[in-house]
Amino acid sequence: MPTLKAVLDILEEIAPTHAAENWDNPGLQIGDLSQEVGKVFISLDPTLKSLRKAVKRNAQVLLTHHPLIPKPVSSLNRDRYPGDVIFEAIERGVSIIAAHTNLDAVRDGINDGLAGLFGLQEVEELEERGDLNEGGFGRIGDLPEPARLGEVIERIKVILGAEKIRVVGRKDRKIKRVAVVGGAGGGMVALASRKGANLLITGDVRHHEALEAEALGLALIDAGHFQTEKTALKPFVNCLRNRFSEQKMDVIVEVNDKEESPMRYE
Amino acid sequence: MPTLKAVLDILEEIAPTHAAENWDNPGLQIGDLSQEVGKVFISLDPTLKSLRKAVKRNAQVLLTHHPLIPKPVSSLNRDRYPGDVIFEAIERGVSIIAAHTNLDAVRDGINDGLAGLFGLQEVEELEERGDLNEGGFGRIGDLPEPARLGEVIERIKVILGAEKIRVVGRKDRKIKRVAVVGGAGGGMVALASRKGANLLITGDVRHHEALEAEALGLALIDAGHFQTEKTALKPFVNCLRNRFSEQKMDVIVEVNDKEESPMRYE
Amino acid sequence: MPTLKAVLDILEEIAPTHAAENWDNPGLQIGDLSQEVGKVFISLDPTLKSLRKAVKRNAQVLLTHHPLIPKPVSSLNRDRYPGDVIFEAIERGVSIIAAHTNLDAVRDGINDGLAGLFGLQEVEELEERGDLNEGGFGRIGDLPEPARLGEVIERIKVILGAEKIRVVGRKDRKIKRVAVVGGAGGGMVALASRKGANLLITGDVRHHEALEAEALGLALIDAGHFQTEKTALKPFVNCLRNRFSEQKMDVIVEVNDKEESPMRYE
Amino acid sequence: MPTLKAVLDILEEIAPTHAAENWDNPGLQIGDLSQEVGKVFISLDPTLKSLRKAVKRNAQVLLTHHPLIPKPVSSLNRDRYPGDVIFEAIERGVSIIAAHTNLDAVRDGINDGLAGLFGLQEVEELEERGDLNEGGFGRIGDLPEPARLGEVIERIKVILGAEKIRVVGRKDRKIKRVAVVGGAGGGMVALASRKGANLLITGDVRHHEALEAEALGLALIDAGHFQTEKTALKPFVNCLRNRFSEQKMDVIVEVNDKEESPMRYE
Amino acid sequence: MPTLKAVLDILEEIAPTHAAENWDNPGLQIGDLSQEVGKVFISLDPTLKSLRKAVKRNAQVLLTHHPLIPKPVSSLNRDRYPGDVIFEAIERGVSIIAAHTNLDAVRDGINDGLAGLFGLQEVEELEERGDLNEGGFGRIGDLPEPARLGEVIERIKVILGAEKIRVVGRKDRKIKRVAVVGGAGGGMVALASRKGANLLITGDVRHHEALEAEALGLALIDAGHFQTEKTALKPFVNCLRNRFSEQKMDVIVEVNDKEESPMRYE
Amino acid sequence: MPTLKAVLDILEEIAPTHAAENWDNPGLQIGDLSQEVGKVFISLDPTLKSLRKAVKRNAQVLLTHHPLIPKPVSSLNRDRYPGDVIFEAIERGVSIIAAHTNLDAVRDGINDGLAGLFGLQEVEELEERGDLNEGGFGRIGDLPEPARLGEVIERIKVILGAEKIRVVGRKDRKIKRVAVVGGAGGGMVALASRKGANLLITGDVRHHEALEAEALGLALIDAGHFQTEKTALKPFVNCLRNRFSEQKMDVIVEVNDKEESPMRYE
Repeated sequence: MPTLKAVLDILEEIAPTHAAENWDNPGLQIGDLSQEVGKVFISLDPTLKSLRKAVKRNAQVLLTHHPLIPKPVSSLNRDRYPGDVIFEAIERGVSIIAAHTNLDAVRDGINDGLAGLFGLQEVEELEERGDLNEGGFGRIGDLPEPARLGEVIERIKVILGAEKIRVVGRKDRKIKRVAVVGGAGGGMVALASRKGANLLITGDVRHHEALEAEALGLALIDAGHFQTEKTALKPFVNCLRNRFSEQKMDVIVEVNDKEESPMRYE
Repeated sequence: MPTLKAVLDILEEIAPTHAAENWDNPGLQIGDLSQEVGKVFISLDPTLKSLRKAVKRNAQVLLTHHPLIPKPVSSLNRDRYPGDVIFEAIERGVSIIAAHTNLDAVRDGINDGLAGLFGLQEVEELEERGDLNEGGFGRIGDLPEPARLGEVIERIKVILGAEKIRVVGRKDRKIKRVAVVGGAGGGMVALASRKGANLLITGDVRHHEALEAEALGLALIDAGHFQTEKTALKPFVNCLRNRFSEQKMDVIVEVNDKEESPMRYE
Repeated sequence: MPTLKAVLDILEEIAPTHAAENWDNPGLQIGDLSQEVGKVFISLDPTLKSLRKAVKRNAQVLLTHHPLIPKPVSSLNRDRYPGDVIFEAIERGVSIIAAHTNLDAVRDGINDGLAGLFGLQEVEELEERGDLNEGGFGRIGDLPEPARLGEVIERIKVILGAEKIRVVGRKDRKIKRVAVVGGAGGGMVALASRKGANLLITGDVRHHEALEAEALGLALIDAGHFQTEKTALKPFVNCLRNRFSEQKMDVIVEVNDKEESPMRYE
Repeated sequence: MPTLKAVLDILEEIAPTHAAENWDNPGLQIGDLSQEVGKVFISLDPTLKSLRKAVKRNAQVLLTHHPLIPKPVSSLNRDRYPGDVIFEAIERGVSIIAAHTNLDAVRDGINDGLAGLFGLQEVEELEERGDLNEGGFGRIGDLPEPARLGEVIERIKVILGAEKIRVVGRKDRKIKRVAVVGGAGGGMVALASRKGANLLITGDVRHHEALEAEALGLALIDAGHFQTEKTALKPFVNCLRNRFSEQKMDVIVEVNDKEESPMRYE
Repeated sequence: MPTLKAVLDILEEIAPTHAAENWDNPGLQIGDLSQEVGKVFISLDPTLKSLRKAVKRNAQVLLTHHPLIPKPVSSLNRDRYPGDVIFEAIERGVSIIAAHTNLDAVRDGINDGLAGLFGLQEVEELEERGDLNEGGFGRIGDLPEPARLGEVIERIKVILGAEKIRVVGRKDRKIKRVAVVGGAGGGMVALASRKGANLLITGDVRHHEALEAEALGLALIDAGHFQTEKTALKPFVNCLRNRFSEQKMDVIVEVNDKEESPMRYE
Repeated sequence: MPTLKAVLDILEEIAPTHAAENWDNPGLQIGDLSQEVGKVFISLDPTLKSLRKAVKRNAQVLLTHHPLIPKPVSSLNRDRYPGDVIFEAIERGVSIIAAHTNLDAVRDGINDGLAGLFGLQEVEELEERGDLNEGGFGRIGDLPEPARLGEVIERIKVILGAEKIRVVGRKDRKIKRVAVVGGAGGGMVALASRKGANLLITGDVRHHEALEAEALGLALIDAGHFQTEKTALKPFVNCLRNRFSEQKMDVIVEVNDKEESPMRYE
């Protein structure tokens, strides 16, 4: 069976560490590089619930989008997150790895996934980087056909399975050019507007970002941090499976289909 | 008629500048200290819409919660916010002043307003400061009677006039101790939990803050940045009117009752 | 009529923003990019007096060497500079733009102007930069004929219209190689000496800079910050007129010929 | 049985966290605060060898002088220290805690231990701190009787069980006043000299520190980082036992008597 | 004869080191604390000329206002200031010490000297400090009788022996309240104006400081860095002589009466 | 006779300043660039003893490995190192220069010297740098024949003339690949291990570095900061003599053969 080291090498090819933001901590969170891996279990968040699901499904590796150790820790306390997850993962023999802003950036990553879900055309990076091979932050492209914002809202709710969404902009606005940023992308309002977008779709939008969009005449949709990322993971999952198969590595890739956003609408 | 200087002095008594966070910029945004003031118009945000409303209502001063110049500017461009507001304010002779995190902190400020709206008892500061006279960040207190989260949700929607709210936590949880933070208070999840809160009510909650609340077993309600602040301004407005009246200053205080959140639910 | 945007584009060609020092703030100070411009009025300093002169001369743009907003501001107070200038400029519809250390550096800028006034030959940059196209700080070159310092002093007073000047070095010293830095260039004493200058001409010289020159055997003339810059503006003014004319832009360029140094000798 | 939390509380009383240097990380390294503790095993270093010895001796807690996580970590790799120790500790159910520079500083800590071993009299802190209750860095005091450096050397080797020691200064120097710093104290040469010491005893002395001592006429003995600290732990061990006993906490305290310095002389 | 150490102790009493600005380097520049001192020679600047004069006058100590080593040095090159002065001072056995911003600040220091020369009354510190015993930056007080600026100019030239001075403000302005800052005090323009001064007298004034004074309606006189400090040294010289005499220390204090400003007017 | 400037130029060719670490201060410490030089005296440390030896041997230049002024100084006190050395050097007319981390790095420098002493083959830099011409930190290479650690220990003691050495690792370990770092190189333990070394030879090893080596299974020998550097100076001395001879510069190079480590073993 392939080792965790081999799995990390595959992941590095798909979403190289140097494509991540400086503040990020992708890659190995906790684990044993020589551990043999037969199943990788994918969740958005490294919660205790996700870990237990991975254990139940007999996975050796929990692969998450958000890192378990986003900021360096100087003490591991079993009574407190992430200590609880770390203790239980070690006791149950599950390694935890992450692909975060590197996965956002790369081809077939989160943002390419989003752009694909909405059928965007002539897709470019929203925030470019020096090295094009590493992708960039967010994507921007054109809808196949211009549409009213009202119609776009309905489609998004279906595509992302979003119960409710939060919106800036009148429903009769015509939308042609759309920027997408999985997760929390309200900080890209000005850039999206400068690049000609009529609409920015993202999550975790804050009040002052909504005001900024309004002042710039940019429509803005907060479809949820969870929903925009979870739904857009699909191309990555396929890509991962293909690589394992190409490399003749006998590793099952399973997605946590019971994971839910921690927030609901009332 | 009293001058803008005199109005700022009153405001300083109610919400002293030194009670603000270090990064904040409360007080005079643009204006002429010797300008005579007959009417102060209060809005949450210094938008062009708010300014025009103030002009229409013949106010000389627009007093907002969020500062017009949150970060120092090195150029004023009429074509871009906040340049557009600054140009129009100067042309129309309207001064703009703000009371932001200083107003959050002080007695009768935003957070005291929130605590009052929910009838909290034995209210304390959530995040204490050295000098008690200056208030602190957020408030924490007990509901008059313990209630299920489901009931609390219904009450909040009525009190804040919130169309929809976002919730972490099962509806049958018993809520006794409640923390409130107007605006964006998701960063207080750990502190609220440590101080014994069963529920934190705030706005602009982000995905990782919701996860953190879930991990700590704290119920969390995002009732909207706009709604939590706007509704909670009332005690401040009364306080301002009283001070003017006590000082025999003939200044009308009017609240922008047409202001709306830039985001709506769909 | 051309817009302010078009005028700024011309200025950018002559003295590109990236040629400025990092701490500087050239370009738009306050204004409306779509404003139509028929006359540009040039002064060294953006004082209230300069602004009023520009208004009187029916200029739409006041172009100064020193920026109106050298450091970012977080509040505009009409009672205090630069708030007074900003309020009055907006009320009178005058935009204010600046070309500062970028204009010092570039070909036909302030320092080239100074070198030309003294007839320096084989002129080079005093402080070189990586990219030669952007010019550098100060200039150094040879007098057409060597002269005694006493003679040079007399010539400078005539050329710059300087009432009095301040001098380090005996009058009978022979001067061949001369460094010039418009404005405040006392910090270049060591560099000028290292590069073989016999004399540095600049303004705003401080006591310890004079001592340093004396210790290094470098003659030093403080001919005034104002005088060295104002007199040296001429090539830039010509250049600006030529560009407008080349571009068939009907913009009058007028220089404030009544501007005086704030300091006089007694 | 008492919990790990209770053990940490006792430790906090003896060597409070705020007595540690800013860069240090004393206290909980990894563990479960509600774990029941029947035996604490004390080593200088949290090596795999120490951990395995603790497991063998049926201890629930490994208490070390040097922290397991001296600098925050962002990933735990089983194949690499300290990941190997962390994995094995969690698997074996052993918590790891540390008392480092706080234990150096406090009464009955490492440095008091050293001063006691040499019988120093009228002992004071070498580097004083604002708050006397928290102790300070190193100790200084007088030998009961002045002695030649040669005699002191022989005594130290016996007392600390040091195979060899490194020395600066002639053997016939008279020694009366002695400074002691457990661990690495070569940086205190100047201070010890200024405070009148004839000799500084410490470990991990570097070449330039030896030169500095020579220039100042201060005798200097490097008796080993390991030996100075390990031998001086005794008063702390006694103190810990007493506190457990006073508090009627049934916790056995055992010292790793097989631990050796990683360096030997050849 | 007293030692250099004893002389430094006297100086410390008069102008304590902790009264200096943080960036300053008062006290011992180069010297031998056990050197015997019979004569102290005082100059404003530690130039080679001042040193040679001190040698000629058989002084063992050169005491200057400006430090010889204002910024730490990492190499001493005899061919370059201050290396030349350091080599020659060591070879000739002259120690060099300085009293700079500490001497500016204290009672009977430079700024008190200036205030005394102009007969200012009810003198206060211009920039206050926490600890009043240590003095502050600059002084402010009232002229015995209000006067026109023109008259004040004439008096200053006589008092300071200033050939020429530089002035901001019309001659017929009435001057009552005057701020004085020896050396380079143009940075105090705003403070002087806020504290009610009609005039600030200082040296090394820069163009933008002159503009600032003009905008604030404050008269400003640049009477020379050298002249304002050198002339104002007198009370300090007397004070130093008195202390030596009180302490029965047989030390002659001599002032360099041939020192001249490095800059002259032409 | 050649000048000090010419000697420094030769030194710059052999060990260019830009090859030094950023924090280092190689080159001129104190001296007169125009001084004539007939003899250069080489010591490891610029102690008073080394200086006096240089004077006795009629050298004009003391060339040391460790800089006399490692950190910039703001005052020179004859009573305290390095003031004592500086005063005496100036009085005796001896210039002092240094070649430190630049000499460590370059071809024929300290680390190449060490590698040569142990007969290492296929030597590479331990820590590479961008520009290969400038060398790097430490060296790594293979022993001509693998040997047991016990044998290597004996050889090192002979080669370096080391009385005693400190060792991590069992004597029967097989050693093939060896890393060497003159002076204090314990911080290179991890890198040496990663690059395949079986043994690191250096000086000034600290306790935690020894533990790190033990954990990584790397043998470690502390043969003394002094011994590793002093013995390895030979190729540099030869190189210096050759350059003088090639340039027809009549300069004698003499090595201080009486210099001893300040620390001895007891």
